[in-house]
Amino acid sequence: MELLLKPLQDLVDKFRSLDGVGKKSAVKMAFSVLNMSEDDARIFADSIIAAKTQLGICDCCQNISVGNECSICADDTRDRSIICVVEDARGVMALEKVKEFKGVYHVLHGTISPMKGIGPDQLKIKELLARIEREDVKEIIIATNPTVEGEATAMYISRLLRPFEVKVTRIANGLPVGADLEYADEVTLYRAIQGRRDI
Amino acid sequence: MELLLKPLQDLVDKFRSLDGVGKKSAVKMAFSVLNMSEDDARIFADSIIAAKTQLGICDCCQNISVGNECSICADDTRDRSIICVVEDARGVMALEKVKEFKGVYHVLHGTISPMKGIGPDQLKIKELLARIEREDVKEIIIATNPTVEGEATAMYISRLLRPFEVKVTRIANGLPVGADLEYADEVTLYRAIQGRRDI
Repeated sequence: MELLLKPLQDLVDKFRSLDGVGKKSAVKMAFSVLNMSEDDARIFADSIIAAKTQLGICDCCQNISVGNECSICADDTRDRSIICVVEDARGVMALEKVKEFKGVYHVLHGTISPMKGIGPDQLKIKELLARIEREDVKEIIIATNPTVEGEATAMYISRLLRPFEVKVTRIANGLPVGADLEYADEVTLYRAIQGRRDI
Repeated sequence: MELLLKPLQDLVDKFRSLDGVGKKSAVKMAFSVLNMSEDDARIFADSIIAAKTQLGICDCCQNISVGNECSICADDTRDRSIICVVEDARGVMALEKVKEFKGVYHVLHGTISPMKGIGPDQLKIKELLARIEREDVKEIIIATNPTVEGEATAMYISRLLRPFEVKVTRIANGLPVGADLEYADEVTLYRAIQGRRDI
């Protein structure tokens, strides 16, 4: 007996191709599908197609949206003079949860990563520049992740923005709230000291 | 803005309904789908339907199969006088990987679990009894998991099988190979001592 029957193996392979799914989880998920009713399996399959076909990208901020304009760009109460630049739509979600930021976003759809063969041209950077030229933008907050790629992308964009009359800022590095000095890594601690503020 | 757009939230909910998938993983997977090409998304959706519609249950051992007979039951070299009883098809897969067991299987499709409202009637126990009556079975190895439900199911089946002239055995409990006495729980250690063998 081949260890998994072909239709099952195919499904396991599909689950494995998703971000962050390992072999054991993929098998577990495939068996969950087998335990579904046929109707539920069809609804699941349809929801994949629906998400893929109904969702597009906002013409302005490049965030995922239903239609050509996302709900944030369509919202008149948001401050269009502050643009927060994030790597992906998940960044927008994370920041929107905080309910603190009242500006608008720009989604890059990735970071510069020579290892993965992703250069600046594959990111939505020229769309950002076009927005700055077109609109009255006062501040760009670069909120890419504090990883090697995220930092490199932040540096690259900040350099590109120098000719424009716009304030460019970067979100702070430091200790997460609730953390312990003892367990913090040296780079984070160093940045926390560098970024110290008056109290 | 609602935190997730409806088609995306629907897809996240579908992923979350799968076994062992939490909220963050579900969101990650849904975004993976958005990053697929439309063709790949369609292939993924099709593989769900294919797995669900092409796979059935073996008439004999109740294992998942393409058609009415699984490849193990169809294999003439397997010893039909020894039946290994497992909870689900994953149990068959795990035991087949060992390449040691040459008998056949019987898949119960669950365990007795009053908490989940699963009684003996919902399991494939009567199919097992019918096999024993119909075929010349010498040994039944009960290989349900060593959990509360698995043990209860093993006890229940072993009692049901008393009237039959068949040897009933249970897979051994003990220390996993490579484990450390210091970190083993008391019940496992107790069973390991009880199940000690001459060397």
